[in-house]
Amino acid sequence: MKKVAILGGTGNIGEGLARRICLGEKFDVEIGSRGAEKAAEAAAGVCTCLIEHNCTCTTCTGGTNADVCEADILILSLPFERIESTIETIGKDCFENKIVVSLINPMIRNPQEKYFLPDAPEEGSAALAIRKMLPESAKLVCAFNNVAANKWMLLDEELDYTVAVCGDDEDAKKEVMELVASVSKLQPLDAGPLAMSKVIEGITPLVITIAMRNKLKDVGVYFK
Amino acid sequence: MKKVAILGGTGNIGEGLARRICLGEKFDVEIGSRGAEKAAEAAAGVCTCLIEHNCTCTTCTGGTNADVCEADILILSLPFERIESTIETIGKDCFENKIVVSLINPMIRNPQEKYFLPDAPEEGSAALAIRKMLPESAKLVCAFNNVAANKWMLLDEELDYTVAVCGDDEDAKKEVMELVASVSKLQPLDAGPLAMSKVIEGITPLVITIAMRNKLKDVGVYFK
Repeated sequence: MKKVAILGGTGNIGEGLARRICLGEKFDVEIGSRGAEKAAEAAAGVCTCLIEHNCTCTTCTGGTNADVCEADILILSLPFERIESTIETIGKDCFENKIVVSLINPMIRNPQEKYFLPDAPEEGSAALAIRKMLPESAKLVCAFNNVAANKWMLLDEELDYTVAVCGDDEDAKKEVMELVASVSKLQPLDAGPLAMSKVIEGITPLVITIAMRNKLKDVGVYFK
Repeated sequence: MKKVAILGGTGNIGEGLARRICLGEKFDVEIGSRGAEKAAEAAAGVCTCLIEHNCTCTTCTGGTNADVCEADILILSLPFERIESTIETIGKDCFENKIVVSLINPMIRNPQEKYFLPDAPEEGSAALAIRKMLPESAKLVCAFNNVAANKWMLLDEELDYTVAVCGDDEDAKKEVMELVASVSKLQPLDAGPLAMSKVIEGITPLVITIAMRNKLKDVGVYFK
């Protein structure tokens, strides 16, 4: 079975992702963190929760971000500001030939004025900036960007969103689309090259703004 | 009854928009074009079509782009490249205090490689660039951007999309949201300030790419 490592997996989205992927029973999961102990703790928490939900858990172990890098797919579940230093700490070599997933949406938050806006770096998107930080052979794919952060942990709720997936390596994109399809009722859609991340990352602040301004709860985006 | 002028209303989207707004019976419509004759012809075509569909037509007249500028809401239904010269030809003064609607999405088209990408000017979006071309007192609002171009003319098909509407003048945005709500089953959503146009304009190339790559027909975007 292929293995997915979630770097920064002790955050809310990371831990939710770990649970959801485990539940899908198509991928093994490893949680990475700066400290191995914290990661192991989070991994144990995931297993306990899954047992409580009567799920047959796939291996869910934990370790430092560097420990878990031998996995097939590496998901970066970290704030954009911490990506570069995390890659440096782990060592760029660990990312050679790997499939790397970004779900990061840098945002300007202005709840007083009831809007969030994209806060893309000069490359045009977080993903395009991260590609520059990784070795040439790494295959970066954007996915999961627009799933509401708070939804990951609510295991009793189905995730029935469409998920736009973009990247420049078609095979890597296909693998990530399989990963997306393994989670709840998520429906992956091929959204073209990595440059499309400029749009996809912006949809999250748009959706949050729409929710705030139109008094809607849990707005999602659907392509159909 | 408030009047909507559609500048560049003899194009496909413009004429479809005119028909749809007339059908809503909440706004009068004028079609503008470079030549008055062409505009009058398009307006007559709209009326004929509406009569054929047993619709009681609201006034749908035509004239040059300058002729129709006394309307309350001016919709720019023109390619981005032609906006600046059109504003100059009409005269910037005509746009003083007007509500102006942009539905323009500049795109890089690459059907061979099966993707379209946003082609925003350096301001970040077409709307942000157009705002600079207009007088300070004009109130620019983005709306209708993500409704599939071919859908406007198919009057037998309901348009049941959600429509993200953004702009910096809250009153103008509200009026444009009423205009959106008058068309078929479109559901307007307040999407925050004009800067959100960076995201909204990009959704059209994203949706086209998703359609091409996933063999889907008529993909729309829904926020819900």
